[in-house]
Amino acid sequence: MSLVVIGSIALDDIETPFGKVEKMVGGAAPFACLAASYFYDKVKVVGIIGGDFPKQEIDVWHKHHIDTEGLQIAEDRKNFYWSGKYHNDMNNRDTLETGLNVLEDFDPILPDSYQDCEYLMLANLTPTTQQTAIRRLFIRPKLIVLDTMNFWMDIALDDLLSTLKSVDVLTINDAEARQLSGEYSLVKAANKILQMGPKYLIIKKGEHGALLFGEDKIFSAPALPLADVFDPTGAGDTFAGGFIGYLAKVGTVNFENMKNAIIFGSALASFCVEKFGTEKLKNLTEQEITARVKEFVQLSNFQI
Amino acid sequence: MSLVVIGSIALDDIETPFGKVEKMVGGAAPFACLAASYFYDKVKVVGIIGGDFPKQEIDVWHKHHIDTEGLQIAEDRKNFYWSGKYHNDMNNRDTLETGLNVLEDFDPILPDSYQDCEYLMLANLTPTTQQTAIRRLFIRPKLIVLDTMNFWMDIALDDLLSTLKSVDVLTINDAEARQLSGEYSLVKAANKILQMGPKYLIIKKGEHGALLFGEDKIFSAPALPLADVFDPTGAGDTFAGGFIGYLAKVGTVNFENMKNAIIFGSALASFCVEKFGTEKLKNLTEQEITARVKEFVQLSNFQI
Repeated sequence: MSLVVIGSIALDDIETPFGKVEKMVGGAAPFACLAASYFYDKVKVVGIIGGDFPKQEIDVWHKHHIDTEGLQIAEDRKNFYWSGKYHNDMNNRDTLETGLNVLEDFDPILPDSYQDCEYLMLANLTPTTQQTAIRRLFIRPKLIVLDTMNFWMDIALDDLLSTLKSVDVLTINDAEARQLSGEYSLVKAANKILQMGPKYLIIKKGEHGALLFGEDKIFSAPALPLADVFDPTGAGDTFAGGFIGYLAKVGTVNFENMKNAIIFGSALASFCVEKFGTEKLKNLTEQEITARVKEFVQLSNFQI
Repeated sequence: MSLVVIGSIALDDIETPFGKVEKMVGGAAPFACLAASYFYDKVKVVGIIGGDFPKQEIDVWHKHHIDTEGLQIAEDRKNFYWSGKYHNDMNNRDTLETGLNVLEDFDPILPDSYQDCEYLMLANLTPTTQQTAIRRLFIRPKLIVLDTMNFWMDIALDDLLSTLKSVDVLTINDAEARQLSGEYSLVKAANKILQMGPKYLIIKKGEHGALLFGEDKIFSAPALPLADVFDPTGAGDTFAGGFIGYLAKVGTVNFENMKNAIIFGSALASFCVEKFGTEKLKNLTEQEITARVKEFVQLSNFQI
């Protein structure tokens, strides 16, 4: 049994008020895989890289026991590239340049060894690519989590709605939940979205935490108030990877376990933003993660 | 011993997507007093009304055991008036008209019987009026809570900073915390503001809940996700009134009790927005409040 992550693998040029980096490894899949690897040791990645991708990064993934058989390498082409600049508030960013390159015609080929997929993380990609990946699994996974963004709601809404019918959990931010549902109230938005297919909806609210809707219940998770957010890139992917990785470890999918999965995912995301790219996710210890989760408990615990 | 609330008493014309009302009783003091009255039976109000204020409202306050000896009545003048219109998202509103009227030269006179004040709620008013009220108490209250807004930061910052030196708890929203401190990170903002005088800072984040800073700790309280917000006017004042009322009931001021006070204050605020003005705050039952608080517990509880 395994946890398969399908998503972009990027080289990012990032500028934040704290500094500037070039060709930093990013993209949804590396963040999600590394986060998940702290909870589950059978993480498998599907994605594509170009010839300019630094191969030593793959060694890091292997150290995290991430299976890269599903990693396609197009040596003669350029890697997917993104450059962006964050504003002072770190909540808004401008995309300066996007080079799809190898991602443009990416076909999510699943090696036979990935057919044991029990947990499927469809990180942000075109909805049709996400749907293709689902169809290529002979046995329907126990849990399919899909992350998407406003961009696909703008240009491929029908494809997205079609894909949503096949997933268990959808993760989007509050603005996207409002856009997808046409409702301002997040309660009403969630009710509508839960009728589109997903049994659970996670609304990511950045510095305000996250909301989980499902089984006629709501859970509100806090975000850790941070003095410095060094680079927010990948925080959402890290959250999603930690979330599904924790559930794969626990092995039972229900609302109570999802609550804890959100806390663990949030804890991983709070580490992610402390350094550029995936740097901080490469060498966390169990002690660090446990201590961070304890901070979440103290932050939100009250006795009435 | 008593809980004294000093604040504006308004007649509001309010338009929301759900309807329109005219000359609805509002202002910080009525919301705060009514909310506090559900926890503490010695609430005393200081404020001023004009000849056009509907006197039957005062009977409602009396039913709630709110002492109105400190209520000034200027029969030949007009009441403080505000009219506003909420946008569809309910988070933004336009002030259409403000008539200060009796509030323009309001002098917060404290009757002798109010000198037993142990808990002082300085609801939103000019910082000098708030400071005058503090000075007029012969014995320093056990707890002084001050609520203010960006308007006073814009036009009376020095007065506000001077007043802040004398208070225990400051309640402002996140934008105001950023403005007052010049820091975007709420952690850094709180650290700076806690050096201005208050021992505790509550940052109100509306639909995202509230943060409590103090004693080198942070507490993150959720907000109840609501399907419909009928009229948000007075929610912050209701929160503050419920907060200080609960602390007055408990009698011990510390971080742990403040956490619960925030939950009770948030519960009262969640009722407030269900109807126009103070209507919903007039006839709540203990059972309703207990059930609502239980919703907050279920919403944010997790077991790790």
